[in-house]
This record gives sequence, C-alpha cells and structure tokens, in this order.
Amino acid sequence: MNFEYSRTQIDLINTLTSTLKKFDDDYWLKCDVEGNFPEVFFKAMAKGGWLGVALPEEYGGSHLGIVDTAIMMMNIAKKGGMTAASSIHMNIFGPSSLVKYASERQKKEWLPQIISGKTKMCFAVTEPDSGLDTSRIKTKATKSGNHYVINGRKIWTSAAQVAKKIMILTRTSPRKNDNPTEGLSLFFTDFDKKKIETKIIEKMGRHAVDSNLLFIDDFNVPINHLIGEEGKGFKYILDSLNPERILVAAEAIGIAENALDRAVSYAKERKVFNIPIGKNQSIQHPLATGWAQLEAAKLMMFKAANLYDSNLSCGLEANAAKYLAAEVGMEICKHAVATHGGMGYAKEYHVERLFREMMIPYLAPVSQQLILCYIAERALGLAKSY
Amino acid sequence: MNFEYSRTQIDLINTLTSTLKKFDDDYWLKCDVEGNFPEVFFKAMAKGGWLGVALPEEYGGSHLGIVDTAIMMMNIAKKGGMTAASSIHMNIFGPSSLVKYASERQKKEWLPQIISGKTKMCFAVTEPDSGLDTSRIKTKATKSGNHYVINGRKIWTSAAQVAKKIMILTRTSPRKNDNPTEGLSLFFTDFDKKKIETKIIEKMGRHAVDSNLLFIDDFNVPINHLIGEEGKGFKYILDSLNPERILVAAEAIGIAENALDRAVSYAKERKVFNIPIGKNQSIQHPLATGWAQLEAAKLMMFKAANLYDSNLSCGLEANAAKYLAAEVGMEICKHAVATHGGMGYAKEYHVERLFREMMIPYLAPVSQQLILCYIAERALGLAKSY
Amino acid sequence: MNFEYSRTQIDLINTLTSTLKKFDDDYWLKCDVEGNFPEVFFKAMAKGGWLGVALPEEYGGSHLGIVDTAIMMMNIAKKGGMTAASSIHMNIFGPSSLVKYASERQKKEWLPQIISGKTKMCFAVTEPDSGLDTSRIKTKATKSGNHYVINGRKIWTSAAQVAKKIMILTRTSPRKNDNPTEGLSLFFTDFDKKKIETKIIEKMGRHAVDSNLLFIDDFNVPINHLIGEEGKGFKYILDSLNPERILVAAEAIGIAENALDRAVSYAKERKVFNIPIGKNQSIQHPLATGWAQLEAAKLMMFKAANLYDSNLSCGLEANAAKYLAAEVGMEICKHAVATHGGMGYAKEYHVERLFREMMIPYLAPVSQQLILCYIAERALGLAKSY
Amino acid sequence: MNFEYSRTQIDLINTLTSTLKKFDDDYWLKCDVEGNFPEVFFKAMAKGGWLGVALPEEYGGSHLGIVDTAIMMMNIAKKGGMTAASSIHMNIFGPSSLVKYASERQKKEWLPQIISGKTKMCFAVTEPDSGLDTSRIKTKATKSGNHYVINGRKIWTSAAQVAKKIMILTRTSPRKNDNPTEGLSLFFTDFDKKKIETKIIEKMGRHAVDSNLLFIDDFNVPINHLIGEEGKGFKYILDSLNPERILVAAEAIGIAENALDRAVSYAKERKVFNIPIGKNQSIQHPLATGWAQLEAAKLMMFKAANLYDSNLSCGLEANAAKYLAAEVGMEICKHAVATHGGMGYAKEYHVERLFREMMIPYLAPVSQQLILCYIAERALGLAKSY
Repeated sequence: MNFEYSRTQIDLINTLTSTLKKFDDDYWLKCDVEGNFPEVFFKAMAKGGWLGVALPEEYGGSHLGIVDTAIMMMNIAKKGGMTAASSIHMNIFGPSSLVKYASERQKKEWLPQIISGKTKMCFAVTEPDSGLDTSRIKTKATKSGNHYVINGRKIWTSAAQVAKKIMILTRTSPRKNDNPTEGLSLFFTDFDKKKIETKIIEKMGRHAVDSNLLFIDDFNVPINHLIGEEGKGFKYILDSLNPERILVAAEAIGIAENALDRAVSYAKERKVFNIPIGKNQSIQHPLATGWAQLEAAKLMMFKAANLYDSNLSCGLEANAAKYLAAEVGMEICKHAVATHGGMGYAKEYHVERLFREMMIPYLAPVSQQLILCYIAERALGLAKSY
Repeated sequence: MNFEYSRTQIDLINTLTSTLKKFDDDYWLKCDVEGNFPEVFFKAMAKGGWLGVALPEEYGGSHLGIVDTAIMMMNIAKKGGMTAASSIHMNIFGPSSLVKYASERQKKEWLPQIISGKTKMCFAVTEPDSGLDTSRIKTKATKSGNHYVINGRKIWTSAAQVAKKIMILTRTSPRKNDNPTEGLSLFFTDFDKKKIETKIIEKMGRHAVDSNLLFIDDFNVPINHLIGEEGKGFKYILDSLNPERILVAAEAIGIAENALDRAVSYAKERKVFNIPIGKNQSIQHPLATGWAQLEAAKLMMFKAANLYDSNLSCGLEANAAKYLAAEVGMEICKHAVATHGGMGYAKEYHVERLFREMMIPYLAPVSQQLILCYIAERALGLAKSY
Repeated sequence: MNFEYSRTQIDLINTLTSTLKKFDDDYWLKCDVEGNFPEVFFKAMAKGGWLGVALPEEYGGSHLGIVDTAIMMMNIAKKGGMTAASSIHMNIFGPSSLVKYASERQKKEWLPQIISGKTKMCFAVTEPDSGLDTSRIKTKATKSGNHYVINGRKIWTSAAQVAKKIMILTRTSPRKNDNPTEGLSLFFTDFDKKKIETKIIEKMGRHAVDSNLLFIDDFNVPINHLIGEEGKGFKYILDSLNPERILVAAEAIGIAENALDRAVSYAKERKVFNIPIGKNQSIQHPLATGWAQLEAAKLMMFKAANLYDSNLSCGLEANAAKYLAAEVGMEICKHAVATHGGMGYAKEYHVERLFREMMIPYLAPVSQQLILCYIAERALGLAKSY
Repeated sequence: MNFEYSRTQIDLINTLTSTLKKFDDDYWLKCDVEGNFPEVFFKAMAKGGWLGVALPEEYGGSHLGIVDTAIMMMNIAKKGGMTAASSIHMNIFGPSSLVKYASERQKKEWLPQIISGKTKMCFAVTEPDSGLDTSRIKTKATKSGNHYVINGRKIWTSAAQVAKKIMILTRTSPRKNDNPTEGLSLFFTDFDKKKIETKIIEKMGRHAVDSNLLFIDDFNVPINHLIGEEGKGFKYILDSLNPERILVAAEAIGIAENALDRAVSYAKERKVFNIPIGKNQSIQHPLATGWAQLEAAKLMMFKAANLYDSNLSCGLEANAAKYLAAEVGMEICKHAVATHGGMGYAKEYHVERLFREMMIPYLAPVSQQLILCYIAERALGLAKSY
C-alpha cells in the first residue's frame, strides 16, 4: 500500500495552483452574482493545456489517468468551487466516449478543438420524465437518407448557452422490456440554436454555468455524427459513469476543503466574549470531525480512481466516494456557514455560495439513495428494493 | 394537560388562511427573485388587523398572547416562508418594548401607526464587532441639550430600506466590567436617511426583505424619543428575547411544514422505475422522521409560549424550541430538496428557496451553540464553558 | 393549551417517590447481576396500590388514565430502569383487555388478585416465525368439549418464570388472506408448568426479568377462560397497542432521565486537566441536546396519552412518542457512558446497565422502522412500502 | 498510490483464517458468558507464531510492520470480537517499549517468553484519579538499595488475573508544572500476587478478559527491571500511542465487519410480511452506509499504519482512524442489533455481544472528544480548548 502523491502529481498541483492563484475570491463571487460564464478562467485552463489532461497525446492531450484528473478537479474546486469545476467539467470528462468509440476521423476533427478550448461542449442525456431511469428517454432520432432527424426534450443540460457542440443520447428503436437499454444512440454534433430552443433553469446556485431545458425540433444530424454503432449508446455512456462519479466526488471534496479552510480562518480571527470563537469545542469539533471524514472520503475517491486506472472493477468505490464526499461536504458547508454566524449568510464571506454549490454533487449525477441501493445489492448481496 | 387548539385559535387560523390564499407560490418566488419587499402582502396583513395582534386594544391591537401570535407566524411562514414572516416580523414583535416601557404619550403617537401598517419599523442592535456579546456595542448617544447625538455602525438591520422608524440601542455611558450591560439606552425615532447611510448586505436568501449595514453619523434624536430611562436599554430588550425565540421557532416550523408538504406531494406524484418515489423507504422515512421531530418541536414551542403567557419562566423552553425547530427544519429542507432530485435545485419547485430561508432561524437570533451552553448551565447546572 | 402537571399528579409523583427511595442503585444493580426478580420492589408496589393504578375501582384499582400511568412508569424507570418497570409492566398494562372484554365473573375472579400482586401474569403473543406480522402466529387452540387444547411455541414472553397466570393469543380458525387477523382468540388462564415448558432466553440486559421461549404441549384450557368471543382476539389486543407504546415511551424517557442525571453529576464532579469535565462543550453539549430532545419526546408522549384519555385518535402520537423517546434515549445512554470515560464501562456506575436496558424500548414492542412506515402512511399519506 | 494487499499479506490472512476457523461462534459466546480467558485460542496463536508478529526475529518474532499487525488484529476481531483481540493484544502490542528501550540482556530474557506465549503480560498505567492526564499518576517507586519499592493504585489493567509479568509506570520524582511528564519511570517485572492485590472490575462486556483495580503495597522490584533510564518512562510510552490507536482502530473495524456480516446474513434469511427483511431500504440502507463508512475508516487506518511503517508522522491519521472506526463501529453494531429485531437482544445471535465489545474502542485508549481536540489543534491549527 501507498497513499502518497507521486513527485509528478505534486508538480501537477504546483503548476495548477500558480494558474489558479490568478483568480481570486471576488472573481468567483462576481461570476455567481452576475451569472456570467467564467470565460477568462476557461481560456486560462485551455492555454495551460488542462482541458486535454485526460485525452490522448496524439490529439494534443496529456493522457493522464483518472487519479491525476481527480487531483486536478479537486484543486480547481478547492479554489473556485463548482463554478470553476463545472465550467470545464464537460470538456474534461465528456469526450471519454469519443476517445473510446468515435472513429479516427471523428476524433481528429473534434478532439483538438475540445482540447484547445475552441469548442465548448454540452451533454444532453436526462429528460424531464425519465429521471434516473435512462432507459425511458423519449427523444427520438429517425434516420432519413444521410442524416437523422431528432425530436424531443432534454433537461439539466449544462452550458448549453455557451456550447458549440452537443453530445446527445436518443432512441433509435423502441424500448423493449427485456432489454430496455438497447436501441439508444449517441451523437456528437454542432449545437444548432435554430433547431434547439434553450430555456435556462433558474436554480439555487452555480449561476455562472447555465443549466437548461432543451426543446429539440426537427434537428437534422448527419449520419457521420453518430458515435460508434446505432443502438449502442447506453453502453458507451455506462463506461463513463464511474469516472464521472469519481470526478464529482473529487469536486465535492474540493468545495468542502474550500469551505473548511474559510471556517477555520474565521474561527481563528473572530473573537466573541474576548476569545477566538475557534477555541470553543462547539465550533472546533464539528470542523475536526469534518476534516477526518473528508480525508477518509478522499482516500475512498483515490482508491476508486486507482482501481479505474488499473482497469479493475471500481463501481463500489466510485459510488461510495460520491456518497461519502457529498454527505461530509454538506455537513462541512453547513458548519462553515454556522461558524461564520450571521456573516455566513452574507455573500461576501463565500461560504453560503459553496453551500449552495455543494448541493449539486449531493443531488447528481445519481442520488444518495440509489447509491445505497447499489451498495446494498453489490457489496452486501441484498435484494433489489425498488 | 391539554395540547389542542381552542375554538378561537382555530377561527384565527381559518381567517388568516383565507387572506394567505391570495398569495400563491409565484408571488413569493417573484419577491425573492426580484428582491422586492412584499408590499401587497404587507398591506393585506395591515388591513386584516394582523399587525397589531399582540398589541393593546386601546391602540388598535388585538391583545392576543404569544401562543396566538406564534400560531399566526407559523401559518404565515407555512405559506410564504421567511419572506412573508420577515416582512411583518418587526411590526409584530418589535413594539413589545414600547408597550412595556414607553410613555403613554409615546405609545399613543407610535403604536397606532405601527398597527395600521402606515409605519414600517426596523431594529438596530447588533454591531459588526459585538457579535452575540451585546454589552460590547459601541454606537454612542451623547446628550446635547434637548437631543442626543448618535454615532456608530449597526449590522443586520432588516427592512431598513423600507422602514420609516428605527428602534436603536446605544451606549450612553461607558462599559463597566462589573456591570457590562448597564449604560445602554434605547430610542425609537424617525429613520433619517440623511444621517443614516445604509448598505444592503447581499445574502443567501430572503432577498425580498433587505438586511443592512447602517453608518450613523451625527444623527440627532430628540430626548423625548428615548424609551424609558437612560441606561436601562439592555433590560428592556432582554424582556423580549424569549418571545423572539418563540416566534422565530414558530417561523422555522412553518417553513419546515411548507417544505415537508411539497416533498410529500412530489413524492406521491413523481414516478421513477414505474412507482411513485414516495413508496421507497429511503424517500419516505426521512420525511416521516422529520414529521415526528417537527411535531415535537412544535409542542416545545407552544409550551414555551404558554409559559410566557402565564408569566412563568420560559427561557429553557424558548431556547429549546428555537434549537429543535432549527435543527429539524434544516434536515427537512435538505430532504425536501433531495426528494425532488435535480428539480429540487430549480427555483420553480420552491424548496431550494425554503432551504435558503431556513438558514436564518438556524443562525439567528442566537446560535445553536449558545443555546446548548444556556441549557447546559440552566437546565443541567454545568459550568459556563466560555 | 396547558402543559403542566396537575396538583393531583404532583402528589402522585411525591407519594411514589417516597416508596422508590427505599430501593437504591445497589438494589437494581444486584437484581441485574444476579438475575433475580425484584420481588421486594414488586411487593412494595402492590402494597402501595400501584399495580391497580389503571384498573377499575370496583376491583380495587384507582382508575387513573394513561397520562397518570405514564407519569408513574416514567418515574419508576427513572429510579430503577427497565428492571423496575418491566417487573410490574405486565400487571399494569396487561389486564386492559380483561377490563374491556372479559365477563363480569372473570373480572371479579382475576382482577383483584392482579391488583393485590398475589398473581403475576405474563403475556404470550409473539412467535418465532411470525415476527411483527401477528396474523401469522401458528399456536393453535382446538375446542374439545368444555375446554380448548393449545399447542404451539411462543417467544419473548416476559416473567414466565414467576408468573401464575398467562394471557395467550392463539389461532382458533385458519388464516384467510382476505382477513388475516380474523380467527385469533385470547385466553387468560393458569400458567401450568407441566404443559408449558419454558426456556430462558439469555439476553443483553434486564436480566432480572426473565424472557422466555414457551413450548406449549396439549395444554388444556377451560372454555370459561376464553376472553370475549372466539376469533376476536386480535381486535382485543389491537386496542391496547397505543397505550403500550405510550407506556414504553414513558419508560424509555425515565431510563434516559436516569442516565442523563448520572452523566451530569459525574461531569460536575470528575476533574481532568484540573477542570470538571462538564465544563467542556464536547461533554456538556451532547447532554444539553439530549435534554432538549428528551423534553420534546416527553411532550409528545403526554400528548398521545392525553388524546387516549380523551377517547381521541392517538396512533400517530403514540408511535411518534415511542420513536422519539427510543432515539434520544439511545443517544443519551451512549453519551452517558462516554461522559464517564472508562468508568462508564464499569457496572458500578450504572450507566452501562441503563444503556443495555434502553435497547429494549428501541427494539420493542415495534421496530423504529415500522413506526416510520406507519407515520409515512398515516400522517403523510404516502404509499405502503412493504 | 496503491490500496491493495500484497501477495504476502493475502497469504498471512489465509494462514490466519485457517487457525481462526477452529474457534466457532459458540466458543466466543461461552468465553463471554462464563468469563473465562480464551486459553485455547491464546495457545493456538502462540503455537502459530502470531504473538511475535511485530517483534524482532532474533528473539523469535516475525518482525512485521504495523500494517501487517493491523491486518492480523482486524481479522482476529472479525472472527472473535474484542474477546479474541484483547486476549493477545498486550502480548502483541505491549513489548514495543521493551524492543526499543530495554537492554539486550533484558530482551533476551523476556521477549522469547512473550513470543512463545509462556508469559502473559499486563500493563499498568492509568490510575483512578489521573484519567487521561497521565502526568498526574501517583504510584511511586522509591529506590532503596538494589531495588525499588512501589506503592500505589492502578485501574483498568487488563488480564491481571492471568498475567505473569507486569509493565508498570510509576513516579520516581515529583511532578513539576513546567515539565509534568518528566520523572516517570517504566518497569517490567514479575507480577507478585502477594504484593499486588487485584480486584476485578465488573463490566459491560468482554467478560473473558478481566479488567482490574490493582492495589500495590510495598512491592519490591529489582533495579535491573527498570526499562531504560529512570525518569524517561513517559517518553517510552508515548512512542507506542500511535501504534496502539492504529491497532485499536483495526480491532474496531474487525468487530464492525463481524456485526455487519451477521446483520446482512440475517436480513437475507429472515422473512416478515413474506419478504426477506433485507429488501426493505430501512434495513439495507443503514447497512450500506455502514459498509461505505467502514471501508473509508479502514483506508484511514491503513494510511496511518503505512506512514508509521515508513517512519513518517502519523499522529493525525492514527487518531482519525480510531475516531472514525469507533463512530461507524457503534452505528453498525446498533443497526446489526436492530436488524435482528428482538433476536438482536438474545445472546445466541452474537450481535449484542459485539455491541457491548464495540464500546471499548469507543472509550479507549483515548476518548473521541480528545481526538477531536487533537485534530482541531494539529490539523486545523485552532487553539487548545481545555
């Protein structure tokens, strides 16, 4: 066993940190208050080569594994919260299906643009009525000559307002009860604002990275924008579920570290009844508990990432990491606000923003409850409950 | 023992409900999104006579006790959350010091206007450096002929943007270590925007009712705007601490009921994997736990109110009610969001707003930690810890 | 509303307390260590007339309601834990079916002996394979002339080693799926040790009041020992479910108060690092939290009892009271042990005994999980989950 | 990073498991019920060479590190709970001060006997009045010719009834406020039952391994039984605090896995309302949560052990591991009992025994509260609170 960062990983963190330093708290606060995409940050990430961190070198990427990518996303969230992480999350994590399943020609055309940051992409999977049961999506792609015609509605598509490309999951043949995930197909294509109407979902936090309803109406997609084989789209997406959970856990951990650091600093400086409030066990013990649980969640996240990079089964660990990180993250953010007393409610102390952002990894990409079902079934061998 | 509402109390709820019905969810959402004071609601409350519910009949009030006032505030929060409750909270709760300690002449001049809603009032106590240690406020009132000159800074003054009157606590003689709360004086006077500069504190929620920093600069207040005796202001305010905690507990309970109702409705309607999600124990049990704890907190709140109305000591119960209501309230709001899945993060489902609003009674008017200190000392006889 | 004890109730507590004082901590510890039934205590209770507290005056009882009975059981548990409470629980609570459904003749014969303490009774309902699904019990009573022949197995029958009488639930006609609880019959009869073999279940705590497996073999019971009508036994028992939950909640609260008092005393006296450990917030805050939640659970318990005594529906409140009391009770007992540090593990400090005893109301007479199902269905209207 | 067992470690587990298999559940239950030291198990461990696992090869040990020792203790506790672990804990963990600080001659005399199991040892540190503040112990060793005379009282000395050797910490010079831990001296000597009166402390669990009060009266110890230098005893013991916490965490994790396995098995087999109870989310989710938190605690424990074996600072991780393991362990044991319903209270289902045993690592060797203080100070830089 070995739980330490390698020399290369420490270098990666140091290089990243020097870029992140250029974006101070006010930058992220302003993005959130004004609801503007953190464009300058995005460009700095692109320029530093960070967007291609997990992509093959032949297209301009660095071909690092999920462990390194998690280290990166954790440190980004530790500085800029979910605002920072979400602004690049899809460019980092989205193309993995392309790498595995797109044709050489497609990859050559698409990946360099994603890596260079010229193209922002969005991902349209979830639908209003399907919830967590992806097999029930209804958006249909009908083949017609050398293109498909897509119609349907998508929800919770992030960054659709700024994206040039869209990855979209559709039904190309009807749902069968005995094989419900067969017949879904995945496309990667230009985001045509004439055929895809977007409606921003006003939400609790992360105002800088838009979330959207998409109304897709007779949207023509060339057949050479289909990824891999028709009908295999669910499988392609499944492959990326575990890395997604690992990265979301890493982001949750970063946000929690951000909030914990602020709480600790405030607890040291703020005096009430003539002593720093952090001298009170009622202030310091919840933070200490948070620290211990967070470090443990981080170990689980790295274990999952490590298994993934070793091509070993990592579903239990990836799910456990997302679960643990989200639970302790919510607690830390709550205590970080409470540590600040009334000032915790003021935007200028930043912890309320992190609290609102932490709710994202708590809710997505899968609910805490479904993770517990997964663990109960797969780790403990108990019966399916739903 | 008897735990049931009286006939009169049921009537009160029914009358109130018919007014509240006029303000639907979208009204409250709009107030929050646009940050506008709920003026129409405030006027309706005034018109219905609700603002004077706890004030003497001779000035136009209804002279009901804290039990009835708590019932009222709980039901208001159950419909309109903290946005509704805070918009009238100060008119309801603030004048209690006037009733007890102002002169007959002052009361005749001021109370009818407060009751009729012609005057909104705000309350300036807390200061940036005093925190929960009120004896350390520094705002000074210096007597000079037939007026006092006030200078200082206040923080977290609600509704200062719309208030015509201000109640303000000041130092009129220096702090003594052996009697630190002596020498504070209370004024009630016109809010002079030329002498009091306001700065809105951007905050996590309840955007419709502003919170402010006040910069008070050579503000002249006539001596006949002093309440009671000079130097006794802290005592006057102390009297109202328990009713305030009871009402805040009632408001927290109302918000929690609001969120719980929404979660239950959504859990009944929303189907995933072909069953209503509320059929899952992982969804329904946290809500059931919330229900049980909330009902228990409500009993504690009513016990405190009942003791207060009977002129019995109620400090332990008032503090316990605020503590319990805030704890279960936070849990219920979190689970209400989680029950909605991703939709819980969207403003249009309202639970995220209630979650942000619930943080207010969690943080104020006293921290959960200080309440536990109070209980440890007063109920259990343990030593002061700070 | 009114949350205070009446004068009569205060007198009841005072009278009871003077009897309870005669049994010190060592008495209860010795009962537990040696596993001996607290016979002297039982006799003192009988002599004081406490066994008939809830039974009609015409048979020697005091005809008090559940509120008063709960006050009594809570105070008994507060002094002697579950050891004390369980030793009389069945004599107090068991005969309620007799009062309602037995014939005048039966009552005249049986009740005075129960009230005087000449007869200890036990109650045989649960079976190894039926669990919480009472409709599935298999013990059969077959009519044969002027008696029934009973065969079957019962589990968790308390006090069978010392009881002279047994109340027993049996099947007298086969289970029907459309009306599974029909066809059960209730008997009250002599405990015949020749026909009923008992096997003590070694258990975690409450060693002084035995729990048993019963093997019933061709046990003849005269037909005039049938209670009420044949086939209606389940209904007769159902009637007593809510009072049972209320009393168990009261007992749990008493145990928790016992443990809390000990923890507070120890926290005041014990000095480490030169200060009483109770000055630490990490010691005092969990106890203060426990106090607040316990008082709230107590209010819920009294609300349920009050509704019951007023012939109003009290199922939700009775279940919520048992749930809340057991949850906070377990927490308080855990913290009481932890407050004592290593000494908490030693029998002579009593808190470990209370911890072991608190597990009983946590597990019985119904699980915490089934209560949450009940609340979810009845209070919130959510679908049955199992 | 790498989180997997090595081939050697897997072999170690397999070899150990084959020995452990010889001791079934009834063996451990019987030890607990009868309060007998598990002598047969102890001998099997000695025969297998397990007692010397962490000791130098030159004295007959295997010289493995703390990682391997933790793996061993975790697996032992997973089979036989604290009864098994405690019976050998002191032989495994106690001699580390000897290895580091005893003379070559002492080691040659003592270590082989400990490794072979011929000698059981006990450890006398804590005193009734010193609690967790070791500097305040009062047991005095006075030099007199070629021996020391020891007088004093010790508490919580395990296995004193069966031990032949005693390691004992004493004061050899008075406590100074500016260096309170100076002046303590450590001895290893024969346990002389004539000079050391023992009194067994009746306790909550682990009845098979006795805990004791020691009354030491003019006990003569030869000067060549002093370990290292006079006055340096505290330092010698300090060295072993982190390994002790790591091993206790490993034992807690083993007990929790034991309880979790039993809960899962029961939840699969037991049917109520015609379905296995484990199909209920209210049963399976607490177990799944327990699994996730336990795996995370295990990673923290191994991280601490790994740091220790690499001669790196491991105080934070060792403390965090003990904290996390004890917290989740208590929760798992509680849910394991609750999963069994009433049967959880019966000794024959074993989970109640594990619940009672889990309280030991919750309370010792350091309280959960002091660990949080340590983390708050060392990891977060907050002020000392006590």
